[in-house]
Amino acid sequence: MSLASASFLASLLGDREISTMLGTEAGIAAMLRFETALARSEASVGLVSADAASAIAAACRDLVPDMPKLRESTLRDGVVVPELVRQLRLKVGEPHDAAVHFGATSQDVIDTALALKLAPVLDLIESRLMKLLADLDALVGRFGDAPLMGRTRMQAAVPITAGHRLRTWRSPIQRLIADLPRQRDALLILTLAGAAGTAEKFGDKITAVRSAMATELGLGVPDYVPHSDRGRMVDFASFLSLVTGALGKIGQDIALMAQTGIDEIALSGGGGSSAMPHKKNPVAAEVLVTLARYNATLLSGMHQALIHEQERSGAAWTLEWIILPQMVEATGCALSHGTALLSSVESISNRQ
Amino acid sequence: MSLASASFLASLLGDREISTMLGTEAGIAAMLRFETALARSEASVGLVSADAASAIAAACRDLVPDMPKLRESTLRDGVVVPELVRQLRLKVGEPHDAAVHFGATSQDVIDTALALKLAPVLDLIESRLMKLLADLDALVGRFGDAPLMGRTRMQAAVPITAGHRLRTWRSPIQRLIADLPRQRDALLILTLAGAAGTAEKFGDKITAVRSAMATELGLGVPDYVPHSDRGRMVDFASFLSLVTGALGKIGQDIALMAQTGIDEIALSGGGGSSAMPHKKNPVAAEVLVTLARYNATLLSGMHQALIHEQERSGAAWTLEWIILPQMVEATGCALSHGTALLSSVESISNRQ
Amino acid sequence: MSLASASFLASLLGDREISTMLGTEAGIAAMLRFETALARSEASVGLVSADAASAIAAACRDLVPDMPKLRESTLRDGVVVPELVRQLRLKVGEPHDAAVHFGATSQDVIDTALALKLAPVLDLIESRLMKLLADLDALVGRFGDAPLMGRTRMQAAVPITAGHRLRTWRSPIQRLIADLPRQRDALLILTLAGAAGTAEKFGDKITAVRSAMATELGLGVPDYVPHSDRGRMVDFASFLSLVTGALGKIGQDIALMAQTGIDEIALSGGGGSSAMPHKKNPVAAEVLVTLARYNATLLSGMHQALIHEQERSGAAWTLEWIILPQMVEATGCALSHGTALLSSVESISNRQ
Amino acid sequence: MSLASASFLASLLGDREISTMLGTEAGIAAMLRFETALARSEASVGLVSADAASAIAAACRDLVPDMPKLRESTLRDGVVVPELVRQLRLKVGEPHDAAVHFGATSQDVIDTALALKLAPVLDLIESRLMKLLADLDALVGRFGDAPLMGRTRMQAAVPITAGHRLRTWRSPIQRLIADLPRQRDALLILTLAGAAGTAEKFGDKITAVRSAMATELGLGVPDYVPHSDRGRMVDFASFLSLVTGALGKIGQDIALMAQTGIDEIALSGGGGSSAMPHKKNPVAAEVLVTLARYNATLLSGMHQALIHEQERSGAAWTLEWIILPQMVEATGCALSHGTALLSSVESISNRQ
Repeated sequence: MSLASASFLASLLGDREISTMLGTEAGIAAMLRFETALARSEASVGLVSADAASAIAAACRDLVPDMPKLRESTLRDGVVVPELVRQLRLKVGEPHDAAVHFGATSQDVIDTALALKLAPVLDLIESRLMKLLADLDALVGRFGDAPLMGRTRMQAAVPITAGHRLRTWRSPIQRLIADLPRQRDALLILTLAGAAGTAEKFGDKITAVRSAMATELGLGVPDYVPHSDRGRMVDFASFLSLVTGALGKIGQDIALMAQTGIDEIALSGGGGSSAMPHKKNPVAAEVLVTLARYNATLLSGMHQALIHEQERSGAAWTLEWIILPQMVEATGCALSHGTALLSSVESISNRQ
Repeated sequence: MSLASASFLASLLGDREISTMLGTEAGIAAMLRFETALARSEASVGLVSADAASAIAAACRDLVPDMPKLRESTLRDGVVVPELVRQLRLKVGEPHDAAVHFGATSQDVIDTALALKLAPVLDLIESRLMKLLADLDALVGRFGDAPLMGRTRMQAAVPITAGHRLRTWRSPIQRLIADLPRQRDALLILTLAGAAGTAEKFGDKITAVRSAMATELGLGVPDYVPHSDRGRMVDFASFLSLVTGALGKIGQDIALMAQTGIDEIALSGGGGSSAMPHKKNPVAAEVLVTLARYNATLLSGMHQALIHEQERSGAAWTLEWIILPQMVEATGCALSHGTALLSSVESISNRQ
Repeated sequence: MSLASASFLASLLGDREISTMLGTEAGIAAMLRFETALARSEASVGLVSADAASAIAAACRDLVPDMPKLRESTLRDGVVVPELVRQLRLKVGEPHDAAVHFGATSQDVIDTALALKLAPVLDLIESRLMKLLADLDALVGRFGDAPLMGRTRMQAAVPITAGHRLRTWRSPIQRLIADLPRQRDALLILTLAGAAGTAEKFGDKITAVRSAMATELGLGVPDYVPHSDRGRMVDFASFLSLVTGALGKIGQDIALMAQTGIDEIALSGGGGSSAMPHKKNPVAAEVLVTLARYNATLLSGMHQALIHEQERSGAAWTLEWIILPQMVEATGCALSHGTALLSSVESISNRQ
Repeated sequence: MSLASASFLASLLGDREISTMLGTEAGIAAMLRFETALARSEASVGLVSADAASAIAAACRDLVPDMPKLRESTLRDGVVVPELVRQLRLKVGEPHDAAVHFGATSQDVIDTALALKLAPVLDLIESRLMKLLADLDALVGRFGDAPLMGRTRMQAAVPITAGHRLRTWRSPIQRLIADLPRQRDALLILTLAGAAGTAEKFGDKITAVRSAMATELGLGVPDYVPHSDRGRMVDFASFLSLVTGALGKIGQDIALMAQTGIDEIALSGGGGSSAMPHKKNPVAAEVLVTLARYNATLLSGMHQALIHEQERSGAAWTLEWIILPQMVEATGCALSHGTALLSSVESISNRQ
């Protein structure tokens, strides 16, 4: 996964850590964690045998998926789970194969796997946001008292200090960090609701299974049917766009401050040009604007996907699959550029 | 204000209560409340005289703005405040005219006035969300046990009950109601920060003025400079789109249930056709989808406006002015359609 | 109709000429023109009597619609036509009332009425685009040779002339003017296809009726069923966003050139500030950016509406009703601001 | 490049042919074709020596780029060209290295390379659109006379035939094919304008160089400066979204026709479920809706990028790089799904 169409753009427009966290191997591992935890939790209430749970756990540990078949079947089924479960059942073999995936549906697997993958992603985002905050604090320490011309509507307004502007960059970052616990509570949940959300195969054992499974996976148990109620995903996408928007404002400000003739900020490094060796382009500042506009664009599609018809919408759900990972990666990429950009600041002040 | 290009569409695509709450008169009244409260609060700390504050309060009460001049000046200034302040100063007359608007900037007035206007809007949204919840509970009471075919990917899945589906409609509504206090805390704040956000005319009295003014206006005091940090506006827009998205899902489901040949829901009323007298179109259900897609579309523009350059961006701020009121009205309109639609449900069940 | 939530914003964010062209009266007039032309054309082939056609034409001329009933019925029917036809039939009276609207459906009326309303709108857009071109040519004449610093990635690149930049502003305008005939051919068409697009009431007379009616109304006859094929509307929306995008680029450039400290352009007028009397804000330039971003936002919704299910989608069609008029008005408003902005240019040159 | 975050989604949400056409190797090959043609064309007018042109052509043929350095430098420069040119100069060696890239700028290379890559993409899109047209014609042949219930506003309207609906699917496809020559004329152009668009290094030889180079590359020569005038890119993006929108309408209709209980269409294949072995999900139909909504979402960002400041905007241009390749791939993917879906139609008719 990458926002980059060619590999030479990968360092500019991608985020290797995040693409690994959301990539093929992580996805399959998370789905197999689901199946293992499901079997164990079902065994704990007697829905499947303890032997079956052990056999399934072992198979999940050892399975080497047939990737071409996964790809091919996903084209037909619209989701990878039926074929993955088929391969897993084959690996488990008789007599325990029938216990694999008992009571679950594809969406249980995919959505729970996403929650499992998002847990470290949220940690990474938090640590990068914290780093950004520290970078801003350091800049306030170094340049906070430097005089700067306040600018409104792109015209000189009244004198301010560099510290004033830096603090306006800082406040949304701080607020977004404070919102992370709310995001974690909403996102890091178990989805286990069966074919149409009624957990019809579990009878009165569903509460116990969910509780055991959530504990094993380190997730919460939602008090609603998460299949067709996509608010948490969409709200997280809004969060991501707020992050890139906050960074985009910083990038736009720095690009304006760095203009030849304004020269309110000096940056080390800076991009070279194939035609103009004298240039030092504020590339990272520009890319922050790009990524902010990109996430602002994508967010609309996530909200369109709220119109999730009936018990499960293939069309709306698949739209999430395309958009959300990209928004996460764009956010991670922007956070890296943001830190690099702030680290490159050599001075802030009114032009002499 | 209306989403309707022609007045005959106003009842279908508008919300009179909300358009009144956000309209011309409400806007001017809120701006004058700002100026009154500002003068009084400044008098309380000795920044202006008590006589000046009284004179300003009286003028705010009595001012009949010259609307053509407001329109004309807004074209030039990009904001109505300079001309409104000029008219107010004229009304106050010597010697207190210089005390009008002391230390404030246009954005202080506009953003605080918006907060004042949003307070009753949030109450209205809450009461309509509560009504919707009650309507859904009533439907669960009436039809909760009725058998219904669960449908995934637009195909029959396994049997569910009407109650199951109704509860999937209910959960996002409940969550959005629970989010309202957070929205109120963020939105209902005083903006008083002066020309470039540094409150440079107030010296060490700014804290006392803000505190007095916020108390008088029933608003909170933010711990950040709200001029260029637009997270609260954008997050509210996301909230609004989550509301219309939740309603859009209900509308889409009902339109699907009402299809000729599916007939899982019976609705009273229903729209007539100019060509086909037999038809009973699920108009409200369709409009819920329309409004959800509209807000999902608009939201992107609000997030673009996060890139708010320097101390105040005319371009980004004006974009909010166009979009946010429409999103509020679309949400209000959708809530009304939602309640009307749920009230029209005569039965839910599998077709015989 | 206006992008402005309050009337004092109407001159900044509205376009009176266009809102009149697309407003209530124009809408009803266009629908009645449809009904008159339909009756006459049907009379010409014997589908209704000549007397009926005369009676209908007279009634269309004299009808004073009951607006409250139109509003009320539109809420129920989702479209104004059934009630308007009912009122028209009442006005026509026996025995010719049955001949009113014969064979037509609501969408025939609404879509043809839109085509009729767009004809003068396209003329207005063309004349404003031509004016803009002339303004740009005049600026090239006045300042074309003035030296200017070329800027790439917001940094000084190599010297250019003002004429070079002005010509980059001009080329998209010229291309959009050249695209207008294509837009007219696509948009200014008759829609007459009956309840489900098959013109089932007309038999083999449909071709003759369409031909006569299109001639009377000055429209083309499409070779496809226009009800559910919305490409022309969506493509026009793209055209509108290309217009505002071209103007937004001009606005952004001028706002950058006008920055204090850059001072590459001098503008007469300029917006005042309530806090800073010295300021001359480039308001029109900023608003061009705003309107470009607004249309870019809305366009997404028009493309969502391409997913127009079956023979007529209430949800998708209604979404067009909300969006397209706004995009037209935003475009008209931007063209006016563009001309005013270019007229206010006093000089372009590198800062001394 | 892929819309898929994990490789098992690649066959569902990707297009291998297009991702190859727009991928790393194709990109570098196209950039080196640019440099070769530039040197040859410059040699033909004496701007560089014939020996230099030969040396450059040979080096372009033999260069094996150092990919890690390309990636690393792109992060710094925001564009791959400076480092690629550096590597090419090294390969050419003295004395001809100075002749490499003479007079050109990064954007000349990137934009021309994109045109070169789009040429086969447009051929592929055309052939797939033609195939789709043929598939639709075949369906009209097989099922055109079958009775079908016309549906408006998701309710039964009047009887139609399957052929009627199939022709409403066909008309936008036909129109889009007819638009391809216009797209080719606009897109397949040479960009050669130098650092700030003035071709300042070429003097009066620019016309001859452009003409020779365009002939060699099979491209047209624009009569405007293409660097900052992005209309062609944005208009192509609109075209792509019109393609996916037309397919999305087909997909939505088929998903509705295939509903259990409606059963107006029978499809072979169909996706399986991990929980419900009886299901045959209309996956391809759903994915067409997904891809249409995705392109409709992305298009907004392309239009935002029209606000391309000054002579070259890093922020806006980079936004195009992220979005346009994805829109192309989504379109290619949708065309493949569309053909597969139409090929799977076994019958169309009213349910018995």
